[in-house]
Amino acid sequence: MALIVQKFGGSSVADAVCIRRVAARVLETRRRGHQVVVIVSAMGDTTDDLIALARQITAMPSDREMDMLMATGEQVSVAMLAMALHALGAEAVSLTGPQAGIFTDGMHRKAKIMGIKPQRIWKHVKAGQIVIVAGFQGQTPTNDIATLGRGGSDTTAVALAAALKADRCQIFTDVEGVYSADPRIVRNARKLDEIAYDEMLELASLGAKVLMARSVEFAKKYGVELEVLSSFSKAPGTIVKEEVKSMEDIVVRGVSADKDQAKITLGGVPDRPGVAARLFKDLAGAGLNIDMIVQNISARGMADISFTVSEDDLAKARRVIQSAARGVQARAVNVDTDIAKVSIVGVGMRGHSGVAFLMFKTLAERGINILMISTSEIKISVIVRKRLANKAMIALHKAFCLDKPGSTRTTPPNRLVRRPR
Amino acid sequence: MALIVQKFGGSSVADAVCIRRVAARVLETRRRGHQVVVIVSAMGDTTDDLIALARQITAMPSDREMDMLMATGEQVSVAMLAMALHALGAEAVSLTGPQAGIFTDGMHRKAKIMGIKPQRIWKHVKAGQIVIVAGFQGQTPTNDIATLGRGGSDTTAVALAAALKADRCQIFTDVEGVYSADPRIVRNARKLDEIAYDEMLELASLGAKVLMARSVEFAKKYGVELEVLSSFSKAPGTIVKEEVKSMEDIVVRGVSADKDQAKITLGGVPDRPGVAARLFKDLAGAGLNIDMIVQNISARGMADISFTVSEDDLAKARRVIQSAARGVQARAVNVDTDIAKVSIVGVGMRGHSGVAFLMFKTLAERGINILMISTSEIKISVIVRKRLANKAMIALHKAFCLDKPGSTRTTPPNRLVRRPR
Repeated sequence: MALIVQKFGGSSVADAVCIRRVAARVLETRRRGHQVVVIVSAMGDTTDDLIALARQITAMPSDREMDMLMATGEQVSVAMLAMALHALGAEAVSLTGPQAGIFTDGMHRKAKIMGIKPQRIWKHVKAGQIVIVAGFQGQTPTNDIATLGRGGSDTTAVALAAALKADRCQIFTDVEGVYSADPRIVRNARKLDEIAYDEMLELASLGAKVLMARSVEFAKKYGVELEVLSSFSKAPGTIVKEEVKSMEDIVVRGVSADKDQAKITLGGVPDRPGVAARLFKDLAGAGLNIDMIVQNISARGMADISFTVSEDDLAKARRVIQSAARGVQARAVNVDTDIAKVSIVGVGMRGHSGVAFLMFKTLAERGINILMISTSEIKISVIVRKRLANKAMIALHKAFCLDKPGSTRTTPPNRLVRRPR
Repeated sequence: MALIVQKFGGSSVADAVCIRRVAARVLETRRRGHQVVVIVSAMGDTTDDLIALARQITAMPSDREMDMLMATGEQVSVAMLAMALHALGAEAVSLTGPQAGIFTDGMHRKAKIMGIKPQRIWKHVKAGQIVIVAGFQGQTPTNDIATLGRGGSDTTAVALAAALKADRCQIFTDVEGVYSADPRIVRNARKLDEIAYDEMLELASLGAKVLMARSVEFAKKYGVELEVLSSFSKAPGTIVKEEVKSMEDIVVRGVSADKDQAKITLGGVPDRPGVAARLFKDLAGAGLNIDMIVQNISARGMADISFTVSEDDLAKARRVIQSAARGVQARAVNVDTDIAKVSIVGVGMRGHSGVAFLMFKTLAERGINILMISTSEIKISVIVRKRLANKAMIALHKAFCLDKPGSTRTTPPNRLVRRPR
């Protein structure tokens, strides 16, 4: 008898029919003799609907009240799934995040799980009940409800799997696993059998946004092996796990494009030490995640500083940066939302040279201009115009042979040279 | 500076426009220098929508899971109202029932408030914030969410007003107060300026169902004076308060009809002591409210026992009574849902005779047959066929001169004789 954590996303519980299907799938696992803890997201578009509802009141709702509002989405799902399991004759009980003992910090809408007190979950599990926990939410130190931000249900699942020392953590979604690229855009994208945590982290926005970065970080930190699989089929999914040597044979595991990005440029910033530090301190203090940062120094001792943020954070970032810009005497603040970030990712990059060259050459041949570049050990990202993102992704997918059957298990393209070890 | 509790029902917060209107009204009270605690129900038809959602899964959802589901309705409302107040520049904070310190028993879907720990509400009130509390819900001893049943938001408001020793408790609704009859049915029904707790209790299902019995009981018990008024107008409402001598001048204060009733009859019950006790013990044990009870004894030592329950409880009552019927060797169980309860109510009945006579005569003249009768000191109820309920109400409203301007302050119809004191 194993303890299995199963997480079902919003599209898996979109309506009553879907919820009954999920109930049957959960019960199947239970009937095989396993203990099951289920995490569910809000039904279908509920979260978006709730955001739209709030927008009818104000364009700038407080984060605390947004959490109060949005947490209802998952609460509806858990109750519905418990009812569906009862209807199948199973014993099940639903819990909100706070009831499940999920404690977070006080950073509303982007809360981090600080700890889990799983006593209540254990009590129900030991009583033979299937425990259904609302994803995406927890309780702050001041007894308020906080949400973990988009993809937070995955984080809940991983955190619970770690806290309960579960034998397996299955992330059910509407795709069959992690793909070499978003299959809606790159038609011959292929499902990966396995992927390393670090690759998954870089590709967090890949494909159908199957896993968010924070849940993968959590999984890596606590060594929770994830399986990403479809709630609509019985096909095996993709295993996300610790990197093993053989993984380095693949140079590029996947290509991704993130279109929800905005670029903010501060022009004419005096080129003095501490200016960048001051800017990014203010942004960090507001809980904003800054991604690519580029600084150019012009001739007259002035610098241009550009960085990207997710479009969700743009309004807040704009406010923060406008006051910070005055503080550092910047001449202008410019915002560009017509951009997308296209990335190639693979732990095999560490062992091969020429990867960046092939990427830039491929884009140049397609007439795709590169606006910004950033690299890590296992990733190269470029900012391009939004309308060119899909074209770039398709071209890169082909150039790195990700479309060839078995390519992820074969040698890299011959333009790439294996580095001597 | 007074502390005012204001409660807004579902129709007052049906959509964003309504919520903004409520926010303006609350803020008006706050700006007059008062401290305000607001209780809100779920938006518009949310509760019914959630019930319908559950029905898509199962016809027989567990009460605990229904509470989990339904409590989200009020949670959405409080967040939305807090946002609307913020948008007007007010300081406001929303609380769920559990966060507000509302503790209930474990009787899901019909929970009773066992106690209130208002520390957190006080903290926010003292910080100058408008506190918005989710009505209809609280926390059980096992840390589950329970709802108080229909009309529970009124109970929340009254209980909080009592716990906070509020100076006033205003119940805002979609009608201008308590009427002499449901104005949708009796066109010349009139708004009452005041009504005694006991009359309101008997008329709890009168008119637009403005107040539920339990909240009135609570108000009476703790001496909380209520004002029922419209959230859509500035007209003064109806004051529900302790009975005063002058109220007895009015014989009949109002007429009501409750169509959500079902009559259950056990036929051929052996006429032995303890049989009724046994039946009603089982029904009470299941948390069912039994209303009118009539027992006839037939010639052969057999009794017929009839009683009424609300249609909401019918499915449950049927299950309980069928097993109880076997226990007492009843011959048959018969259910009749084609009924309605029509009542006349007034504390003045105590001081006048001939009231029942005038009621029965009025109905007989209209050809309305009476199936059951029950009386209290200040009320006479009859069960009639459902389709005749409106006709009965209109006839009684006229017979007791409730349609005459000023009638509720003038002498009773001349057929009624004032009893000597």
